[in-house]
Amino acid sequence: MSIRVGIVGISGFGGGEAMRLVASHPSFELIYAAGEGSAGSRLVDRFPGVPAKLAELVIGKWDPLTLPKLDVLFASLPTGASAEALARVPADVKIVDIGGDHRYVEGWAYGLADVWPAEIGGQTRVANPGCFPAATLSALAPLLVNKLIEPGNIVIDVKTGISGAGRGGADSKFGYAESNENLQPYGLLKHVHMPEIATTIERLSGGSAAGLVFTPHLVPMTRGVLATIYCRGRVTTDRCLDAARRFYANRAFVRVTDRPPQTKWATGSNLAFVSYAADPERNLVIAMGVVDNLGKGAAGQAVQNANLICGLPETAGLDGAPVWP
Amino acid sequence: MSIRVGIVGISGFGGGEAMRLVASHPSFELIYAAGEGSAGSRLVDRFPGVPAKLAELVIGKWDPLTLPKLDVLFASLPTGASAEALARVPADVKIVDIGGDHRYVEGWAYGLADVWPAEIGGQTRVANPGCFPAATLSALAPLLVNKLIEPGNIVIDVKTGISGAGRGGADSKFGYAESNENLQPYGLLKHVHMPEIATTIERLSGGSAAGLVFTPHLVPMTRGVLATIYCRGRVTTDRCLDAARRFYANRAFVRVTDRPPQTKWATGSNLAFVSYAADPERNLVIAMGVVDNLGKGAAGQAVQNANLICGLPETAGLDGAPVWP
Amino acid sequence: MSIRVGIVGISGFGGGEAMRLVASHPSFELIYAAGEGSAGSRLVDRFPGVPAKLAELVIGKWDPLTLPKLDVLFASLPTGASAEALARVPADVKIVDIGGDHRYVEGWAYGLADVWPAEIGGQTRVANPGCFPAATLSALAPLLVNKLIEPGNIVIDVKTGISGAGRGGADSKFGYAESNENLQPYGLLKHVHMPEIATTIERLSGGSAAGLVFTPHLVPMTRGVLATIYCRGRVTTDRCLDAARRFYANRAFVRVTDRPPQTKWATGSNLAFVSYAADPERNLVIAMGVVDNLGKGAAGQAVQNANLICGLPETAGLDGAPVWP
Amino acid sequence: MSIRVGIVGISGFGGGEAMRLVASHPSFELIYAAGEGSAGSRLVDRFPGVPAKLAELVIGKWDPLTLPKLDVLFASLPTGASAEALARVPADVKIVDIGGDHRYVEGWAYGLADVWPAEIGGQTRVANPGCFPAATLSALAPLLVNKLIEPGNIVIDVKTGISGAGRGGADSKFGYAESNENLQPYGLLKHVHMPEIATTIERLSGGSAAGLVFTPHLVPMTRGVLATIYCRGRVTTDRCLDAARRFYANRAFVRVTDRPPQTKWATGSNLAFVSYAADPERNLVIAMGVVDNLGKGAAGQAVQNANLICGLPETAGLDGAPVWP
Repeated sequence: MSIRVGIVGISGFGGGEAMRLVASHPSFELIYAAGEGSAGSRLVDRFPGVPAKLAELVIGKWDPLTLPKLDVLFASLPTGASAEALARVPADVKIVDIGGDHRYVEGWAYGLADVWPAEIGGQTRVANPGCFPAATLSALAPLLVNKLIEPGNIVIDVKTGISGAGRGGADSKFGYAESNENLQPYGLLKHVHMPEIATTIERLSGGSAAGLVFTPHLVPMTRGVLATIYCRGRVTTDRCLDAARRFYANRAFVRVTDRPPQTKWATGSNLAFVSYAADPERNLVIAMGVVDNLGKGAAGQAVQNANLICGLPETAGLDGAPVWP
Repeated sequence: MSIRVGIVGISGFGGGEAMRLVASHPSFELIYAAGEGSAGSRLVDRFPGVPAKLAELVIGKWDPLTLPKLDVLFASLPTGASAEALARVPADVKIVDIGGDHRYVEGWAYGLADVWPAEIGGQTRVANPGCFPAATLSALAPLLVNKLIEPGNIVIDVKTGISGAGRGGADSKFGYAESNENLQPYGLLKHVHMPEIATTIERLSGGSAAGLVFTPHLVPMTRGVLATIYCRGRVTTDRCLDAARRFYANRAFVRVTDRPPQTKWATGSNLAFVSYAADPERNLVIAMGVVDNLGKGAAGQAVQNANLICGLPETAGLDGAPVWP
Repeated sequence: MSIRVGIVGISGFGGGEAMRLVASHPSFELIYAAGEGSAGSRLVDRFPGVPAKLAELVIGKWDPLTLPKLDVLFASLPTGASAEALARVPADVKIVDIGGDHRYVEGWAYGLADVWPAEIGGQTRVANPGCFPAATLSALAPLLVNKLIEPGNIVIDVKTGISGAGRGGADSKFGYAESNENLQPYGLLKHVHMPEIATTIERLSGGSAAGLVFTPHLVPMTRGVLATIYCRGRVTTDRCLDAARRFYANRAFVRVTDRPPQTKWATGSNLAFVSYAADPERNLVIAMGVVDNLGKGAAGQAVQNANLICGLPETAGLDGAPVWP
Repeated sequence: MSIRVGIVGISGFGGGEAMRLVASHPSFELIYAAGEGSAGSRLVDRFPGVPAKLAELVIGKWDPLTLPKLDVLFASLPTGASAEALARVPADVKIVDIGGDHRYVEGWAYGLADVWPAEIGGQTRVANPGCFPAATLSALAPLLVNKLIEPGNIVIDVKTGISGAGRGGADSKFGYAESNENLQPYGLLKHVHMPEIATTIERLSGGSAAGLVFTPHLVPMTRGVLATIYCRGRVTTDRCLDAARRFYANRAFVRVTDRPPQTKWATGSNLAFVSYAADPERNLVIAMGVVDNLGKGAAGQAVQNANLICGLPETAGLDGAPVWP
C-alpha cells in the first residue's frame, strides 16, 4: 500500500530534489505539490524531465486547510516562513521540515538521521538539519562522542555550492556572471547555522561549545558542501578513522575514507563522506565532511527521516550511486 | 532471476555511468568489471560512492578468454579499440558496444532504441549510437520519416559538454584551466560521427544525405549535448511538433516540447528532448535535440538496448528523474 | 591634454568594462559616472579593484541637464532606455551608445569600426554594434564584400556567455544554479539582433539578406561570443582566408587564423578572431567569428569608436593582450 | 631606453601571464622566450591574441649558455627544475624566479614586495613568493608586525583556482570533467608552501610559528586564491583594519576592505585584498587575503619585483583595473 506524499515549496531547489526522490521511491506516491513561484503550472512545465506518471499534477497554492488526505508532507520553505505555514497542518499528517524554523523547537525531533536514528522513528514532526550542520556534524560526531577532541575549541571552515543559497538567492548577487569564477566568504561570526551546530556539539559531547567558530564560503559550483574542521585533540589519524568506522558501522549512508573527501563524490546522493588528519604532537585534529547540500543536506536526509517515521527501510528510494562526473 | 552483467572500460566516463545504472537496475547484477587505468583496484577505490554491495569488486585487466559466465557485457572502449577487444567474446554473451567500432558493421544491430526498438529485441550484438547521433537523430527522425524536410540539405551545429571528449581527453587540451570559460569548435568538415549520421538519415528518409554539414563544439560544462539542426522544408512548427508527438507516442524516453530544450533538462537521465521552430515561407525548419551525452548518448541508451535484448521492460532501471539543478 | 569622459550605465557589465578601459586609457579621464543600481556609492564600493585615482568618484543618478563639461559620453543602458535618456545630451558632447537603440537610426553612425573606420571619424553620435553582430559581421564582411558567398542564404548559429544577458539578466532564469552546466537556445526566428545583421549584410554585399537565419544560445561561461555561420559559395578555405587577410590588412584588431577560433583567445581584449572552412564541391562555406562580448562586443569597440571620433590612434588604451587562462 | 627581458617557462600559466604583463609594460621589451612544450613555435601560435609586435618571436629551448643579452629574466619553471636551470645564467642578468626553488635560499632575496620593498631594490636575484604565501602573508603581516595575534597559533585554510596546479596539472586529475563541480582538499599536514609561510611569519613576528596549520583546497575556477586564517588575539575588527591601513599606507597594491574580499575582485590584476573579523572576548581574529594566483601570486608580483630591482616605478605596467565580471 503506497504512502501518500505532499511537497510544499516545490519551486525551490530543496523541494525539487524532494520531488525527484519521491518520484522514484518504492513506497511513496506524490499526490500533492504546492509552491509560490509555480502555482497553477503542471509539474512537467516546471520539471520537463519529470516521470510521466507525475507530469500532469498541477502545483497548487499552499493552504493547510484544503490539503488532500496525506500521510507525509515535506516542507521546503524559506527560513522564517515554515513555522506559520505548518502550524495548522492536521496532526495526523507526518511532517519533515527541510527548512530551518523547527530545529531544536519543542515538539519537533531533530532529524540527524545517521547519528540518532532511534530518536526519529515514531515521531510525527521532524526538523531536518541544514546542509552545513549535516556536513559538519557527520564528521564531528564520532570524535565528540568518543571524547577525542575538545568541544569548546572547534573552528569550522565550510564551503558550499551556490544552490545552497536557494532559488531566492538568484538575485544579482547570485547571478551567473557575478558568482562564476568567484569565491566568497560571508556571514562571518554570525551565521544562522551556528546555534544549531553548537547545540548539537553540546548534546554529542556533554561539554560546552563556547569557542565555536564558523565561516561559510560560496564556491562557484551548483551542488556540494565541504566542511574542513580544525579541532584540538591528542590522537592519531588512525584513531579518528577507527572511531568513525565503529561509530558508523551498519549505518548505510556515511562513508569513512582514508583520503580527503571531494564534494563530487556525493553529487545526487544521500551519502556523507568523512575523513580525518591528525597530529597528536601538535594537539591537532582536522575533520572533514562532505555532502550534497540538496541530498544529505536537504531532500535526501528528509526522505531518510520520512522512511524512519513511516517504519520503512531507511534506504528506501535512496540507494542510487552518485552521479559522476 | 538476476542477469549477470560485465562492464569493460569502467575507468572511463561511459563505463562509470554504465556502472551507476547497472547498480540500481532491478534485474542486473554486476559481477565483472575491467579497465585499463584502474585494473587491480576495487570499485570503491575508483567510485567512492558506489553502493556497498559492489564496493569490494576488484577491477580486472580485460581478457575475453577468462571471462566469468556473463549474460550481458557492456563495452565502453576508445574508438578503434573495441573491434579487436570484443572479437573473441563467447557468442552466448550478449554485447552492447558503447564505443564506435561496430556502428553499421555487419552482424551488429544499430541500437537507435527510441526509433527502431523492434530491430534490437532478439539481437546478441548491438552497437550503441554516439552521443551526437543520439541528439541529432532523435530530433530528425520524425521529420525524415514523414518527409517534412529534404534529407539532402541538413546543417547540424552540435554542442557537447567536455565529458564527451572522454577521460583520455584529459590532456592539457582538456585541462580545466584551458577548457573553462572557453568555447571551441573542432573537427570541421570531417568529424568521425558524420558517416553514422548520414547513413541513418538515408535509412530514415530513403533519400540521399549528400549535403550533410556537421560542426561540433566543446562547451565548458561536464555533461549534455544539444544539436541545433537547420533543414529545408515548407511546414509549420505545429506540423513538426505534431509529427514528433505521433512518432514518439508510447515511447518512454523522448519528450517533445513546445519551447527550445535545455541540456540541463536531461542531466543524469536517459531522456531525449526534441523541439522545432519552422517558417514555411522561408522554407526553414530548425530541429533541436537534447540528451545527456553519458545517458541517452552512451550508458543510458546502452541499458535501454540491453533491456530490449534481454526481453525486459524497456524502462527497467531507467525511470529516475533528471538531476536538477 | 586629457579628454573628459563620462559613463552612464556604469552599474552594468558593459559600463563596468568601459570604466576598466577608460581607467587605463592614455588620453581619457573619467570625470563622471551615472548608474541606476549604484547611484550614491563611490566607484570603489562598486568596483573594489578600481585604480586609486578613481576610487572616490561618486556615482550619480543620470540627468542630462546637469552634466559636467564632457568631451565623450559612453552610454550602456538597457535596450529601450537609451533613446530617451540621450535625447537631451548637449550636442557638443560626443556620444558612443553601447546600447541598442540607435543602431541604423538617422543621425547616428553605425560603429562597425574594423570594417568602416572612415565613416566614424568626425562623427559625434555613434551607435556601437551588438555583441552578436560584432562576432558575425567580422567573419562575414570579407566574404560579402568579395562576393564569395550568397548574401541571401546565411545561417548564423551563435553562442554567448551569460554576461551577454546583462546584469538585469540576473533573475532566476540567469541564476548561477540554473545556468551552470546548462546550454540554452532562445529567441528562435525572432531575435532582436537580426535586423541589424541583415541590414549590414545588405550594405556589405549589395544584395538581399532575405533568407537570414539567426539562432542564439546561452553558454555556461561569463564572457565570449562565437558565431558559427553556414553560407553558400563555391570557394576554397584558402580563398576565404586570403580574402580576409587582405580585407583586414593594417587593421589592428582582427586576427585571421587557420584553425577554428576559441572564445578564450579574446577574453578581456578588443580583438576579433575569424576563420573559415569551405568545400567548393558542396557549395559550402563555414565562417567563424569570436569576440569578447564585453570587449569588441561592447566596451572595447566603444573605446575604439571614441578613439576614432576624437582623432586619437585607434589602438589607444586597447593594446593589452587577452587574459589567459 | 627599453629594458631587455626574457622569459623561460613561457608554455606554463605563470610564464604566459608574465608575457601578457611584459607585453604592455612601458619599459620592458620581450626579446627572448623559452619553453619545453612550445619550443620551435611562434608566440602567436601559442597565444593567438599576443600583440602584433611579439607575434613572430620564436620560442626557443632553454639554454643558459646561448642567451641573448638580457637585462631581466623571468623564470617560471616547475618546482625542482629552476635551481639547476638558472645556476649558469650570467651574473649580470637580473633574475626573478617565479618558481619555488630559491625561496629563502642564500643569495636570493625573498620578493614579498608589498611588505619588504626596500630589501628588493638593488638585488639581482629575487625569489618570488608562492600564490598561497602571497594571499596569506598579505593578510597576516600587519597583525604580526603589530603583535596583534599569536604567531604560534595560526590555522590557514586556503582555497585556490585550478590554474594554481599548473599546466602540468592537466592530467586526468585536473581534467575539466573531474574538476568541474568539485571541491578538493589536498596536501593535509604536509604542503610544500608551509615552510615558506612559517619562516616569514617568524621574520615578521620575531616569535615561533610552531603551531602552524595549513590546508589547501582546489576550487572549480580558473584563477584566484582566498586564504581564510584563524588566529588568536584579543583585538577588535577595527583595530585590525586600522593596523592594516597604516601598514599599507602608500603601498599601491594592497587594498584593505571592511567586507570580506572575493577572489573575483583581483582577477587579472596585481592587487591583494585583505580584511578582518575579530572578537576579543573569544580571543579570535579571522584574517582574509585574496589574490589572483597568476597576478600577485605569480607574474604580477614578479613584474613588481623586476620594477624594484630595475629602479622603475613599482606600478609600471601593473596599474590596470581587474577584469570584471
